[in-house]
Amino acid sequence: MSNVIGIDPGSRVTGYGVVRRDGSGIVYVGSGIIRVDAKKPRPERLAHIKRELDLVLRKYDPVEAAVEEVFVAKNPKSALVLGEARGVAILAIGEAEIDFFEYSAREVKRSVAGIGSAHKSQVATMIGKLLGMKTVPATEDETDALAVAFCHMLRMSGVGRSM
Amino acid sequence: MSNVIGIDPGSRVTGYGVVRRDGSGIVYVGSGIIRVDAKKPRPERLAHIKRELDLVLRKYDPVEAAVEEVFVAKNPKSALVLGEARGVAILAIGEAEIDFFEYSAREVKRSVAGIGSAHKSQVATMIGKLLGMKTVPATEDETDALAVAFCHMLRMSGVGRSM
Repeated sequence: MSNVIGIDPGSRVTGYGVVRRDGSGIVYVGSGIIRVDAKKPRPERLAHIKRELDLVLRKYDPVEAAVEEVFVAKNPKSALVLGEARGVAILAIGEAEIDFFEYSAREVKRSVAGIGSAHKSQVATMIGKLLGMKTVPATEDETDALAVAFCHMLRMSGVGRSM
Repeated sequence: MSNVIGIDPGSRVTGYGVVRRDGSGIVYVGSGIIRVDAKKPRPERLAHIKRELDLVLRKYDPVEAAVEEVFVAKNPKSALVLGEARGVAILAIGEAEIDFFEYSAREVKRSVAGIGSAHKSQVATMIGKLLGMKTVPATEDETDALAVAFCHMLRMSGVGRSM
């Protein structure tokens, strides 16, 4: 079956999560985080994210990638810095010629936790259950990435939760 | 002498300009723009910017790169999209292991036009004169990129304008 990757780009930590369809359900394939050294210059940090993401994309060979749309950042400055990490993630997707999809935070939360205003911790708990995982990844960067991958898979296949 | 590149990243048009020190002055080496097809998906657009920038960096082999710091974007949404293009530009600089510098718009304008509140058109005219160009590039993306390269060269070398 085809893998789908969700990516949660961040200037400090970028999370990724891979899921696939298994019979009538959606299952966990893999996930992780890419952490950058905040003391390193920005070009090095972005190059590190790109290098690691390229490896992840090669390893899981996803056919589609989903990223959460960020439509409200705290302020333009943080939006700009976040945008830089997103740009690198979207570039990696583009270079790998993987189809790219975006979902709003509300859509992701609704598809995973049933309501668009769910807390991040609820999303984390629910995504673990939905993907049949014995333990839930410790970081929200990882569970958020799995959530957006799950959201996309649900949209594409129509399996899983009824909404 | 060593080349310095200035890059003005944008979601539609990315400008670049290369200058070098020549005796006691700073001279024009080359410049251009990278235009993306707005109809193409974002991953393809970012991959196009990256591919073209990589070629430019290989062609001019700059030792240092300067980008204008953007500290006031119109709104978080446009900051995010601009950030994506900036991320790709800074990544290209990082992968090429070129030293990276940022200058505020005020610093760039002051170093080129003498005042931090100069208009873009004044900057364009002045940069043409300062670099001894017979004709000024038609787009402000290009002249802005030359201006930030000039600003950096001035900072590093102390030649040129007294401020």
